[in-house]
Amino acid sequence: MFVMDLQKTGAKYDAAEATAMYEYRREKLYRWMNEEGLSLLMFQHTEGQTDPAVRWLTGYPADALLFLVSEKKSMLVPWDIHLALSCSCADEVTPYTDFERQPINAIRGAIRSFGLPLGAKLEIPPVTPYPQFLQYVESLSECDIVCRTGGAHEEVGRLRAIKDDAEIALYRQVSGFTNELMDLLEKQIREGKLKTESETALFIEAEGRKRGCEGTGFETLAAGPARSFGIHPFPAYTLGEFAGPGLSILDFGLVYKGYTSDVTLTFAREPLTKAQEKLITLVERAYRMALDLVRTGGPTKDIAFEVDAFFRHAKKAMPHALGHGIGLEAHEFPALRNRSDNDWILQPGMVFTLEPGLYDPRQGGCRLENDILLTESGPETLTNARIIRL
Amino acid sequence: MFVMDLQKTGAKYDAAEATAMYEYRREKLYRWMNEEGLSLLMFQHTEGQTDPAVRWLTGYPADALLFLVSEKKSMLVPWDIHLALSCSCADEVTPYTDFERQPINAIRGAIRSFGLPLGAKLEIPPVTPYPQFLQYVESLSECDIVCRTGGAHEEVGRLRAIKDDAEIALYRQVSGFTNELMDLLEKQIREGKLKTESETALFIEAEGRKRGCEGTGFETLAAGPARSFGIHPFPAYTLGEFAGPGLSILDFGLVYKGYTSDVTLTFAREPLTKAQEKLITLVERAYRMALDLVRTGGPTKDIAFEVDAFFRHAKKAMPHALGHGIGLEAHEFPALRNRSDNDWILQPGMVFTLEPGLYDPRQGGCRLENDILLTESGPETLTNARIIRL
Repeated sequence: MFVMDLQKTGAKYDAAEATAMYEYRREKLYRWMNEEGLSLLMFQHTEGQTDPAVRWLTGYPADALLFLVSEKKSMLVPWDIHLALSCSCADEVTPYTDFERQPINAIRGAIRSFGLPLGAKLEIPPVTPYPQFLQYVESLSECDIVCRTGGAHEEVGRLRAIKDDAEIALYRQVSGFTNELMDLLEKQIREGKLKTESETALFIEAEGRKRGCEGTGFETLAAGPARSFGIHPFPAYTLGEFAGPGLSILDFGLVYKGYTSDVTLTFAREPLTKAQEKLITLVERAYRMALDLVRTGGPTKDIAFEVDAFFRHAKKAMPHALGHGIGLEAHEFPALRNRSDNDWILQPGMVFTLEPGLYDPRQGGCRLENDILLTESGPETLTNARIIRL
Repeated sequence: MFVMDLQKTGAKYDAAEATAMYEYRREKLYRWMNEEGLSLLMFQHTEGQTDPAVRWLTGYPADALLFLVSEKKSMLVPWDIHLALSCSCADEVTPYTDFERQPINAIRGAIRSFGLPLGAKLEIPPVTPYPQFLQYVESLSECDIVCRTGGAHEEVGRLRAIKDDAEIALYRQVSGFTNELMDLLEKQIREGKLKTESETALFIEAEGRKRGCEGTGFETLAAGPARSFGIHPFPAYTLGEFAGPGLSILDFGLVYKGYTSDVTLTFAREPLTKAQEKLITLVERAYRMALDLVRTGGPTKDIAFEVDAFFRHAKKAMPHALGHGIGLEAHEFPALRNRSDNDWILQPGMVFTLEPGLYDPRQGGCRLENDILLTESGPETLTNARIIRL
């Protein structure tokens, strides 16, 4: 049994506690596997096919395959064996290079290592490309290969959507750092110390790390008045002016021990046009309306449709979802999409964003995004993003 | 016809020249489609399924679907219509929201818009997940859906592997910026002005943008002596010491008008152990050996196997590939893997890295990586990364 080293990941749990946590999470999956008659389960976190479930189940934050077998054993296959030996918790750790860095070889290795019988049922990630699936079926004729929606990987997604106590504690910490940083950003911008998109974005990178964060959850989006009309500006930030007259959008997240916040501030500097004032008012009202609708048992699409209707009434349209779950990824379950196929229901323990926004090619854009924890007693707004008037 | 706006992408071509360039690239694909009897070709660059071919074929750098039809028409379906109207070149541009942000709806829209007949042959990306492929087949029974290795998307990869004159000109520019920055980094580190991993990485972000770069091609990896044993340290950079006694690795790339450089410097500060000196000597010799083997018509796996044999002779092993193509992505064709299934042959116009490296959990790591352009008259080393002794 390899156990995570606390130094390397910056974690403060003790090793035994961490081991127990990862084993507890895997235990839930072993039970599910046995119910489903599944012998072997494969996760893949590699370039172009990422899956933070590997980190959630073992603590290992980098490229690896992970195999779970219904007899309650786990095997991590990391690209970087030195890193894995310093910060992972799994029953076996075998370097990916032992398998020529080929998934099929690693699957065969796991079958051999666990002594699985012929015809064993193996579930692979539902994002496996079709041509690769065909290759697996051809090469691994000794297995019954399952690749589906609604399977084990979605089950992990559902489990991850409800944060446990350790995760909620981390969310309180990362939200605190994020709030501190937003206050500092407001101060620096009011004092004229941060003038460009680039200065603003790099200030966040530096200050986040000073607070012990791993980094940012996605490339910080800093769009001054000339570029805030884009939902996600391209490039993410430039040498252009930030927080000058008009509307500027700042969308960022800090990552603490794996978990990312995700907030958006709008800076509105005088003089503003009537149309810009209207965007601000509509977004603030939509945000409050959405927050008022958050409750246990509520379908997320209903909230999203309400906000859509509100904007439609004002002859506006929001070109993106109302929000999304956050965790080890910036976008995870639950979805808060305004789509008929969205069947997510809010439950205590979910942590998600609400982020109404409107964008106009001439007026610029306005978005307000905060992170919400749904508790037994209702929604708790973890972060303190706001529309800041300058 | 929508034409790219030069301000927004920072491009310096004039609009007519840009239009001609993207049309020329699409023209090559239309020919290929006609040879293959393909009516419709779909590219997808969205969250979790990226494909810079969309940018290569239209100039549009953000999330979108792209459809090409063999009758030589293109249709871009961007997530952000405002951004697309400001910087893309396609015959039609229709917002993704018109299709409820659902690929199947967009495919139906393209079929309708182009007036394709029943049974038209449609090729979708080879990374399409198996369950999604099944959904397409069920929902789009009016089409003959192709999803394969060795198809249109790989053809684009092969075309992109040979850079055209405009791309080579951009590579000379981004390499120049990268070389300037490496000299500046060496100076700042020698003068004790950059002391931590974080200062070093954020210096690159800031200085790159001052030179007009979009950003960095991947998260800068700065590993001081305590962490350089990892191929890719995690987190990418921290507040820890950089370039202190022992071996430190700095791996970064600047992106200029879409194209990324990719270099790795090792900083070796006295006192060094004999084992550390040996790592340096071996890596420098492996790098020179690899460069000497680069020639038109040469199989890349032969070079990689030679380097492997050299390291094996010294009782060492490199846990990663010898190099990879670079371009709109940090990792693209050609592969320079030490794997029997690697059948890439070097051709003039290819731009790729050579990056031998060795890693030891006690001594730390050493890697040297430069970007090479293969010209008609042989390899040209574009960048000037080196092992810097302090």
